[in-house]
Amino acid sequence: MKKIIEIVPNYSEGINNNIMAEIISPFENEKDIFLVKLEMDASYNRSVLTVIGEATIVLEKMVESAKIATKLIDLTKHSGEHPRMGAVDVIPILPIQNITEEECIELSKDLGKRINEATNVPIFLYSKSATRPHTENLPDIREGEFEGLKEKMQDPRWHSDFGNNYPHETAGVFAVGCRKPLIAFNIDVNSKNKNQVAGIARRVRYSGGGYRYIQANAAHLHDKDIYQVTMNLTDYEKTALYQAIEAVKMEAKRFNTEIISTEIVGLVSVKCLENSLKYYLRMPDTKKLDYSLEEIVEMSIKHFKLRDFSVDKVIEYYIK
Amino acid sequence: MKKIIEIVPNYSEGINNNIMAEIISPFENEKDIFLVKLEMDASYNRSVLTVIGEATIVLEKMVESAKIATKLIDLTKHSGEHPRMGAVDVIPILPIQNITEEECIELSKDLGKRINEATNVPIFLYSKSATRPHTENLPDIREGEFEGLKEKMQDPRWHSDFGNNYPHETAGVFAVGCRKPLIAFNIDVNSKNKNQVAGIARRVRYSGGGYRYIQANAAHLHDKDIYQVTMNLTDYEKTALYQAIEAVKMEAKRFNTEIISTEIVGLVSVKCLENSLKYYLRMPDTKKLDYSLEEIVEMSIKHFKLRDFSVDKVIEYYIK
Repeated sequence: MKKIIEIVPNYSEGINNNIMAEIISPFENEKDIFLVKLEMDASYNRSVLTVIGEATIVLEKMVESAKIATKLIDLTKHSGEHPRMGAVDVIPILPIQNITEEECIELSKDLGKRINEATNVPIFLYSKSATRPHTENLPDIREGEFEGLKEKMQDPRWHSDFGNNYPHETAGVFAVGCRKPLIAFNIDVNSKNKNQVAGIARRVRYSGGGYRYIQANAAHLHDKDIYQVTMNLTDYEKTALYQAIEAVKMEAKRFNTEIISTEIVGLVSVKCLENSLKYYLRMPDTKKLDYSLEEIVEMSIKHFKLRDFSVDKVIEYYIK
Repeated sequence: MKKIIEIVPNYSEGINNNIMAEIISPFENEKDIFLVKLEMDASYNRSVLTVIGEATIVLEKMVESAKIATKLIDLTKHSGEHPRMGAVDVIPILPIQNITEEECIELSKDLGKRINEATNVPIFLYSKSATRPHTENLPDIREGEFEGLKEKMQDPRWHSDFGNNYPHETAGVFAVGCRKPLIAFNIDVNSKNKNQVAGIARRVRYSGGGYRYIQANAAHLHDKDIYQVTMNLTDYEKTALYQAIEAVKMEAKRFNTEIISTEIVGLVSVKCLENSLKYYLRMPDTKKLDYSLEEIVEMSIKHFKLRDFSVDKVIEYYIK
């Protein structure tokens, strides 16, 4: 069985279409690779690419893409609203199918080494791949940005994992690391009172005493003039979608407020949907759900009240 | 306004009534002190005392009680099922009214110093009062028990906070520290299937991805032949009673199971009850509940489905 990973490289270029076309070209027209989407943000001057596919080939193409980005992006001339430290700012690697977290950590180290050899850009290993506690958190590595790297990297604490202990002149440094898939999950509630919705968010999130793997805030939907609880589920195998939904529903009752609809931003694995469907179907975790991908999507829309959801939001749609 | 604390000293004597009567005598017939209960456990050979009262007088009497226990309890002759390291094994101090956690930490240090001066027993500060990360957790300090102290304390990591770096010959060492009030809260469910109830417990507790301040397991009630989710709420201001109730109710639905009743073991503050009552009364946190203690208890029994609950389970009953 093929080992499937997802990579979500962030490039420090969000304006020039021609440059981005060249940078992503290695991933195109390749067997066992699915270029899911490229999101360019002009005000950030940054692009986020999502690629899913067989691990070996994805990583090989990532090295090529990093080589092109190093050649075409010059950070001495780059500005944008999003902080950045490298031409390829960060390369997250996520285990998707038939591959463990441990294997992904090993792959990320291999990838870091190969990119450094191909580009001479120093590499930091971050997140689950970090070799030191203070390099786990990406914003800590990035603090001071491209312009501050030269001085920062003189400190042994900020020596790179692969390559020189000073930045590449135009491409800075890259971070590479394995992290858990994260579900961006929003719940629309029929309240026009921001304090109420902030109160719901506070009570369901970890920092407020709520669920361990929920981060949450209140956000306003201008077009509908309603609020949503906007969440990240940082480990959906431990804190599931259904727990987020039911906890928001429960807290909303205090304010006589209800859930209108929910929204998954980005991709989700079928496993995440199935785990929570079993709750609503009153099935034990251990039973198998014998439904097609299309049926799973239909049932998820119904039970989770999902809006704007379709089969192409499911990772497995691309790797069947 | 008087500063009210609760102390819950554990003594290494659970069989001899006369000895325990002498040890607790300093707390009796004192103004501003309420000796709530003494629980002696013969198989543990250990007693747990609960005292509530004005901080200064409670601590003064605690020093006296520790002196008597040091004289009367000889650990070289002690055996029981519960691990122990001192004649007074541990003295937890809890903030109750008009006193902050920070003040309680200071009080615990003062108490530790005074007990050491009065008894020559070395003192470890633990929990919130710990001066080193490895002495926060009581079982870590106690590991090796009374018999292992002499060797253990030669290691600078296990030097005491007050007193000698070797144990008292017959009384060992005592731990003193401020900790948060902890609510022992059980929920009876109408299931005869232990795996189901263990599944509910796993999903609501922190270690399973559930609420941040819930510890939970399944336990069997032999007389009724039903199971309960037995919980500790380790910070009821962040993870409230109502969240524990509603989370168990929600997870139980998967198994077509319901809550029969709930149970608070030990004492609870009126604030804890009020905070969760507001949820069921659909009131914002910020509103005041204008009810008598008796009315709060009555409403709690109704809304939380409490059994075996009465006004003498509420801390404020003793300090009005």
